[in-house]
Amino acid sequence: MKQYYSDYLQLDRILNAQKPVSAEHGTEAHDEMLFIIMHQVYELWFKQILHELSDVLSTFGRDRIDEKQVGIAVSRLLRITEIQKVLVDQLSVIETMTSLDFLEFRQLLAPASGFQSVQFRVIENKLGVLPEQRMRYDKQPYYAHVTPDHQEVIREAEESRSLFDLIESWLERTPYVEFEGFNFWESYRQAVDQHFQVDRDIIHANDRWSDEEKEVQLKEVAGNAAHFSAVFDKEKHEALIEKGRWRLSHRATVAALLIHLYRDEPILHLPYRLLTVLVDMDEWFTTWRYRHALMVHRMIGTKVGTGGSVGYQYLRSTVEKHKVFTDLFNLSTFLIPRSALPPLPDDVQQTLGFFGDRAK
Amino acid sequence: MKQYYSDYLQLDRILNAQKPVSAEHGTEAHDEMLFIIMHQVYELWFKQILHELSDVLSTFGRDRIDEKQVGIAVSRLLRITEIQKVLVDQLSVIETMTSLDFLEFRQLLAPASGFQSVQFRVIENKLGVLPEQRMRYDKQPYYAHVTPDHQEVIREAEESRSLFDLIESWLERTPYVEFEGFNFWESYRQAVDQHFQVDRDIIHANDRWSDEEKEVQLKEVAGNAAHFSAVFDKEKHEALIEKGRWRLSHRATVAALLIHLYRDEPILHLPYRLLTVLVDMDEWFTTWRYRHALMVHRMIGTKVGTGGSVGYQYLRSTVEKHKVFTDLFNLSTFLIPRSALPPLPDDVQQTLGFFGDRAK
Amino acid sequence: MKQYYSDYLQLDRILNAQKPVSAEHGTEAHDEMLFIIMHQVYELWFKQILHELSDVLSTFGRDRIDEKQVGIAVSRLLRITEIQKVLVDQLSVIETMTSLDFLEFRQLLAPASGFQSVQFRVIENKLGVLPEQRMRYDKQPYYAHVTPDHQEVIREAEESRSLFDLIESWLERTPYVEFEGFNFWESYRQAVDQHFQVDRDIIHANDRWSDEEKEVQLKEVAGNAAHFSAVFDKEKHEALIEKGRWRLSHRATVAALLIHLYRDEPILHLPYRLLTVLVDMDEWFTTWRYRHALMVHRMIGTKVGTGGSVGYQYLRSTVEKHKVFTDLFNLSTFLIPRSALPPLPDDVQQTLGFFGDRAK
Amino acid sequence: MKQYYSDYLQLDRILNAQKPVSAEHGTEAHDEMLFIIMHQVYELWFKQILHELSDVLSTFGRDRIDEKQVGIAVSRLLRITEIQKVLVDQLSVIETMTSLDFLEFRQLLAPASGFQSVQFRVIENKLGVLPEQRMRYDKQPYYAHVTPDHQEVIREAEESRSLFDLIESWLERTPYVEFEGFNFWESYRQAVDQHFQVDRDIIHANDRWSDEEKEVQLKEVAGNAAHFSAVFDKEKHEALIEKGRWRLSHRATVAALLIHLYRDEPILHLPYRLLTVLVDMDEWFTTWRYRHALMVHRMIGTKVGTGGSVGYQYLRSTVEKHKVFTDLFNLSTFLIPRSALPPLPDDVQQTLGFFGDRAK
Repeated sequence: MKQYYSDYLQLDRILNAQKPVSAEHGTEAHDEMLFIIMHQVYELWFKQILHELSDVLSTFGRDRIDEKQVGIAVSRLLRITEIQKVLVDQLSVIETMTSLDFLEFRQLLAPASGFQSVQFRVIENKLGVLPEQRMRYDKQPYYAHVTPDHQEVIREAEESRSLFDLIESWLERTPYVEFEGFNFWESYRQAVDQHFQVDRDIIHANDRWSDEEKEVQLKEVAGNAAHFSAVFDKEKHEALIEKGRWRLSHRATVAALLIHLYRDEPILHLPYRLLTVLVDMDEWFTTWRYRHALMVHRMIGTKVGTGGSVGYQYLRSTVEKHKVFTDLFNLSTFLIPRSALPPLPDDVQQTLGFFGDRAK
Repeated sequence: MKQYYSDYLQLDRILNAQKPVSAEHGTEAHDEMLFIIMHQVYELWFKQILHELSDVLSTFGRDRIDEKQVGIAVSRLLRITEIQKVLVDQLSVIETMTSLDFLEFRQLLAPASGFQSVQFRVIENKLGVLPEQRMRYDKQPYYAHVTPDHQEVIREAEESRSLFDLIESWLERTPYVEFEGFNFWESYRQAVDQHFQVDRDIIHANDRWSDEEKEVQLKEVAGNAAHFSAVFDKEKHEALIEKGRWRLSHRATVAALLIHLYRDEPILHLPYRLLTVLVDMDEWFTTWRYRHALMVHRMIGTKVGTGGSVGYQYLRSTVEKHKVFTDLFNLSTFLIPRSALPPLPDDVQQTLGFFGDRAK
Repeated sequence: MKQYYSDYLQLDRILNAQKPVSAEHGTEAHDEMLFIIMHQVYELWFKQILHELSDVLSTFGRDRIDEKQVGIAVSRLLRITEIQKVLVDQLSVIETMTSLDFLEFRQLLAPASGFQSVQFRVIENKLGVLPEQRMRYDKQPYYAHVTPDHQEVIREAEESRSLFDLIESWLERTPYVEFEGFNFWESYRQAVDQHFQVDRDIIHANDRWSDEEKEVQLKEVAGNAAHFSAVFDKEKHEALIEKGRWRLSHRATVAALLIHLYRDEPILHLPYRLLTVLVDMDEWFTTWRYRHALMVHRMIGTKVGTGGSVGYQYLRSTVEKHKVFTDLFNLSTFLIPRSALPPLPDDVQQTLGFFGDRAK
Repeated sequence: MKQYYSDYLQLDRILNAQKPVSAEHGTEAHDEMLFIIMHQVYELWFKQILHELSDVLSTFGRDRIDEKQVGIAVSRLLRITEIQKVLVDQLSVIETMTSLDFLEFRQLLAPASGFQSVQFRVIENKLGVLPEQRMRYDKQPYYAHVTPDHQEVIREAEESRSLFDLIESWLERTPYVEFEGFNFWESYRQAVDQHFQVDRDIIHANDRWSDEEKEVQLKEVAGNAAHFSAVFDKEKHEALIEKGRWRLSHRATVAALLIHLYRDEPILHLPYRLLTVLVDMDEWFTTWRYRHALMVHRMIGTKVGTGGSVGYQYLRSTVEKHKVFTDLFNLSTFLIPRSALPPLPDDVQQTLGFFGDRAK
């Protein structure tokens, strides 16, 4: 008995699935092979991303999530970001195809278009892109250009609980926000007030600045302080949500902020890595969309797309719109210097640590 | 006699030029060293970019430019793009600094800010960023936040002939556009017309499309054909320039298009590489501005900057605005498939080649 | 008062520290500027690496190390790996210098050479490269080509406790290896024995293999099983150390293995990340040495270096020799599939977790 | 009529070709999907590399090769190097799989192994790896572990003319080596002699060096001069070829050297880029083999492979052995500074340029 590598990988299927249409229409355009293989590689990676994402969704969909599972989820998400880097890096291969060479077979593809990747839409939906974030194209829903079966798959992903939903609910259940005898939220508010007061005192005391310079500085301090009301004032928070300028619930936002501030406490180490990798994932997709839009621009200019294909303008518009974890990204708006943080009471610190330090 | 590596590199100066202000104000913030060194590394690379750029400017500023010098200029510009990749890559080092750690010394830097890099502004001006492309900040000119001496340096770079100017004038002098008995421009116009006619014929003849589908397709062909008038119609071109939607003169645009279309002719190989590397350079600066803006956003959120420093919104706005060679980037709008190109007459082809092929 | 960015960064010193020798000898070689700036950038990064490394050394040099500090140390080391990636990436900039251009000023540098970086030698010593790992060059010690003051700095780093020493001693103090009623070591030995027995049973039972094929397979199982004796048998371990084929003490090796095997337990998460980043750091320096050697080879071929400079052969020989955490790298030799691991008793598992899971 | 993206790309085949064996044996190992998809992606890229390579081979297999075709060949080879960078970059994805997770299904793959990639062997053979460069494994030929059909494919690639052969013969036909009235070879020999004489004179004249120091320097000059005899002396060249230390014929070596030295002449620009990209391609495969070997080492340690699979030692040994264009890589051994080059006579220079410079 012999198991061959090529059988295991089903290479006969994989390596015989490239049929350039230009060959059918006369002369094969040399570069169409690259176009096909590049897209197939993207789809394979998308499948792998979905494989990881599904596992993470199933973890956070459970009633009880232990820390061990959070650790595994983080490593799954980190793998996704490594794949995303490859998605970006390999754009430089497709960039070796010049527009003249692309035009040679582009016409024949119409109206098929890279815009139609079902898996990519499913990934976006599973992450938590909302239908209302999506641009309509040709006055049709964003999934109009795929087969009815595939439309079903995309809609299903749209309706299931997304990673955003599950993370929000996990954050809301965080047990750390209130400890006996220590109200994080109250302490933090005081620390923030004090921090800005110190800033104001420094400005007033500085006799090398003119009054005018002082005023400019003070106005900036006031502006920054005002920003914090978005988290300290629950009603303002609700208002932001209603206007679509914030998405994460107030309770989840507070938990996320606490995790950010006390990330060095051992027990918050993993939760912090989780929040970080979510933002990274968002950022890498953003970078990918951006580079992809640039590449299309360079390839076909500002021409209207043929058939169902889309041009640069459309792609460019999705770059920032399809972000999901923007609120986590924006958390840094609500930070103060580490040294101005309210110190944790000893017993809280002990609870957040492991069983003490390690004697020599 | 012994020459030491450390003397040659003046390492005593380089390695003793880091003075964290946080140390002067009490405790040294561990991460301030990274902040300083990172910026110094950026400035060193900026100096190297200027070194290459100056050489290229001096080449194209000459009355006579031979092909050998074009080849050397291309290699200088390619080196700049390699440096630009490093500028982008090394953002991942600064991204290891969390906002909490940055806040620890950020206040002390005010109003010094990375926004004030003199060299970067000089680079932009030497490339050809126009004063009117720049955003005013605090109602002051973009160079207001540096010393008077440095302002002088920036303004001087603003007033000298930029790479854009020199390349435009080099393109206008291209001898290839008209050969005896072959008018490139006229031939190309006919080829484009014919290309769209073929498209229309295919659509009409396709009986698997409904009339409605045909109409959609035909409208797209019409739209794409209309685009070409921007180059074929000199008056429309002038109008675009007046509206600020095009910058490159008509003659230079035509030459650039010819170089794009016949890039495989040996004699056009170097000119094509030149145009390509200019676009690449623009694209890499765009990517850098974009990633830099993202990083600042992540670090300080949407807060107003302290002192002369600037926030995410400002940086974000410069990403696309400061592009210089956009017109070259947009050339792909005016291409047709290689197989539809007007064939070059034999004698023209011979002139564009070297001394024929190489016998076995 | 105004603090300028350029003053803060001491740019007058940084940007005026490039004095090409070729300029002094007649014509400035255009590429010498790149040579100088590139090396200065490297030295700045080396300074940053030392800044991080010193902090980590001071952490692990303490009598008591709490988990919070381990977390911070990991983030310092991760930053070093990000810098290392830049060190590798930026080789592509120097690779734009052709050998013809390098030869133009190479002669003038003699005998100064990149080989003489004091900081790099200090980094290696602080990591734990041993004097006996180093090749002698010209029958002189490896630090012979620098000033007496610098020799002192290098020797001092050689004599202080290295990161290797401190990590080894930290591992030896790990409290996890023996819990009441659970001897990890004994359990693991049994699991390994059983794992190989299962392998043998599978081979015997497989009737699609010929006797000859079975024999080959069995021999391999035997070979792999024999490998484990290097950790299970303390005497064999000592023998390996004596022969210089292993460096980490037996107790530290066992602790490292336990951390590897049970990395998903929350309490072992950080220790595992620590071991991983140490191996990564080693690997990135290895990659850097390798790419650097290749680059020198391409630049000057196999020529003998001029003056104190060194050629490809020397550089090539250090690539693998200067690794420090090879033993950690080799730990995978002693792993068995996760599903074959001895399950941790409930109470041990609880001790290794935090305070249980999180109820919905 | 509607052509779907998913039909065009045959995604039903591509995305249904992953069948983890661990699922058949009980529980699916989560990471086996990554293992499968990663290898499939590699094979797709290998197919693309072969697509480009075949085109280049067919170009250089022709009786007459015009410069235009050389330009296209260079762009094909540049694309291969871009793919190679992706091959290296994406190793970081597989590196997210820990050895514990790999061990979970590794046993089940036996004896299938990544070592068996038919396409990779074909690529190596088409480039010019010789059968005698290959290590025997288990005393069997290197292609023993694949199906008889695949063995046939590999052997066929072994027997056809490789890229090395075709490039060598193209170099031998270079018309530039001898011009009327200018013998490149003779001029270069004189320039080299003179270059070393200048070196010696400088050393003798330098009164800051001691006699001992002078002697060291002179010995190095002598050593470097001796190196050149390998190209200047045809018999020594033949001897090196016989010993297997050089592969490229003398005539081809001379042509390659000329191209290197006068690369800035417009007509030699493309030939120089061709030689450069060949060396780059070699270097990227070397880097890939190196990083791959490291990864395997980290994954399975120094264990003997199971079944037909191979361990680190084998992989490590192929890193340098399978280089093809080493001689081109080594050309820098025979260079002297640009300023010491024999100037080309005016008429030669004109022949090598285009039709003169471009008047303003």
